[in-house]
Amino acid sequence: MTQRVYNFSPGPAVLPEPVLEEAQKHLVALPGVGMSILEISHRSAAFTEIIQAAEQNLRRLLEIPEDYAVLFLQGGAKLQFGMIPLNFLRNTGCKASYVVSGTWSKQALAEATTQGQAHAAWDGKATNYDRVPRDEEIQIAPDSLYLYICINETIAGVQFPREPETNGVPLVCDASSELLSRPLDIRRYGILFACAQKNLGPAGVTVVIIRKDFLDRCPDDLPVMLNYRQLAEHKSLLNTPPVFAVYMVKLVTDWVLREFGDLNKLKEFNEKKANLLYEAIESCGGFYTVHAAPGSRSAMNIAFRLPNGDIEKEFLAEAKKAGLYNLEGHRSVGGCRASIYNAMPWRGVVALRDFMLRFHEENRNTLG
Amino acid sequence: MTQRVYNFSPGPAVLPEPVLEEAQKHLVALPGVGMSILEISHRSAAFTEIIQAAEQNLRRLLEIPEDYAVLFLQGGAKLQFGMIPLNFLRNTGCKASYVVSGTWSKQALAEATTQGQAHAAWDGKATNYDRVPRDEEIQIAPDSLYLYICINETIAGVQFPREPETNGVPLVCDASSELLSRPLDIRRYGILFACAQKNLGPAGVTVVIIRKDFLDRCPDDLPVMLNYRQLAEHKSLLNTPPVFAVYMVKLVTDWVLREFGDLNKLKEFNEKKANLLYEAIESCGGFYTVHAAPGSRSAMNIAFRLPNGDIEKEFLAEAKKAGLYNLEGHRSVGGCRASIYNAMPWRGVVALRDFMLRFHEENRNTLG
Repeated sequence: MTQRVYNFSPGPAVLPEPVLEEAQKHLVALPGVGMSILEISHRSAAFTEIIQAAEQNLRRLLEIPEDYAVLFLQGGAKLQFGMIPLNFLRNTGCKASYVVSGTWSKQALAEATTQGQAHAAWDGKATNYDRVPRDEEIQIAPDSLYLYICINETIAGVQFPREPETNGVPLVCDASSELLSRPLDIRRYGILFACAQKNLGPAGVTVVIIRKDFLDRCPDDLPVMLNYRQLAEHKSLLNTPPVFAVYMVKLVTDWVLREFGDLNKLKEFNEKKANLLYEAIESCGGFYTVHAAPGSRSAMNIAFRLPNGDIEKEFLAEAKKAGLYNLEGHRSVGGCRASIYNAMPWRGVVALRDFMLRFHEENRNTLG
Repeated sequence: MTQRVYNFSPGPAVLPEPVLEEAQKHLVALPGVGMSILEISHRSAAFTEIIQAAEQNLRRLLEIPEDYAVLFLQGGAKLQFGMIPLNFLRNTGCKASYVVSGTWSKQALAEATTQGQAHAAWDGKATNYDRVPRDEEIQIAPDSLYLYICINETIAGVQFPREPETNGVPLVCDASSELLSRPLDIRRYGILFACAQKNLGPAGVTVVIIRKDFLDRCPDDLPVMLNYRQLAEHKSLLNTPPVFAVYMVKLVTDWVLREFGDLNKLKEFNEKKANLLYEAIESCGGFYTVHAAPGSRSAMNIAFRLPNGDIEKEFLAEAKKAGLYNLEGHRSVGGCRASIYNAMPWRGVVALRDFMLRFHEENRNTLG
């Protein structure tokens, strides 16, 4: 068995080791079932229990009200960028407003404009997407069906500290690198979606939480697999769902319940991890600089730079030698980024903090 | 470890045991990578090698020409039912003709009619979908962009013995329960698609083989995740693909190459397995009746009935006691069905044959 490293990847991301071990143990044959989770029917009693448990775990952890459906879909968050306007903007005359706080919300807006009337309620371009807007900066178009936000922009490491005020307009939210990391006020949302490969499980399943009155708006002229109402009516079993990925969401949410009990505890843990790194960065007198402005800093993705590109390369190479992997920033922006989702253990963050302080000590004088 | 049973499920279906064992062995950490296949980046060198190997294996086994793209998508075959007309019929004035030879081609036609002009070139309803059409029965509408077929209808166990004659009109084909079971003449197809959970891997990935001139027809006003051209331009990495499912396709196609070498060998093996069951059925003098007419009988799914519903129930219960699982027919039609995809071992088919002969012996006289 190869030794495991610390994986700071923004996604697919590190999973809890006990979850991986459990999945491994039963991969050839699920106990009492006689076949692998990779071979069982999506309509079997065994899988029915698994998908229901995954949903119930999510409902319990996120306190999802009864008038919201929980769907397990495919296609990633990016398919949601398209499905939402296909269902709710195309041929409806409805408008939507989008907060553009980084790469992903910008892409979501671009997708929406191919299907209907969508406009930017705020755009963070002026300060290179280093912060979220204040409530009074957000200009929601009159008659907007929803206000779209990406609550945590993974690339820039910019996160809403809380939901923006919308005067009753429901939020539609890309919570991909956020969901399950802290409590959210679900009642504020019309739709919340998250690809699994950050805090929920492996790539291959996307969780969509949708208020049931949104389902009533879905048109009849869409392919069934793109119609939220049909997907909800069939409880995500309109066809074969990604069985293994749903099973992993069940195991991961079991682990969250077992290890933390609720999301308040998990929020504390995540903030403690993030603060350890932000404080280490602050203590180095400008050697490391965080991209995000105070008040908008993500607890999940810490994007930072070093004094120049050469030293960044050395930092990344040395980190890898120390078993600290995938600290590269997104290929569109460069720099460095540490993603520390739920499953990143405390000892991994401590190892990174220690490495960063040591690297600073060793390199502070080599720079003019 | 629970004992494994013989799994005759139509999908998700049995996988090769050596593949399951290999996946299990490396599930916590891929050798030389230090993290699980469930945690690695889709842009890592390790995954790049895996997805390219999966594609190359498919190209080699199916002899896919260079002017076809091979895509790894999500959403199952049913999303393809919708994506094909969204891309090629909607707002184009193009027509398409559909052979309706069972449940799945019927659904595909229904999806197409929501987006454009599609009509049935033949419908097997008159004989309860027990056969495929003869070439001269297929009425392709003039100016059809494609003729759609479901080459193997999983529910009724009806399979085209070879591609129908179309006078140059490209085929668009749902090959979900067919692909990789025998050689196909890829040049006859504009698009071939197959969900993985029959012969290719676990649920969660769909392989699409598409001729490149079809890509040029894709419109610009679709969400990117529904646009074949964009998906092909980004080599299925427009966003995070279902990493684990693609890895499993790589392992399964490695296994096919190792065990069989080419699809002619696999075809022989599959026909030998199917004949064993069809011959056993014939030998029981009408106790078992096959749904499909001779000449249209599937080598993958053998749908059959017993003299009445009570004896079918007993058959299924006794089979389960003998370790022969998931022999129920589809919930929409009842009866019995044995799915014997590539990974069903010879000994599994022999066990079923022996059980069927014994059950016939024991019950032939109990029936009026």
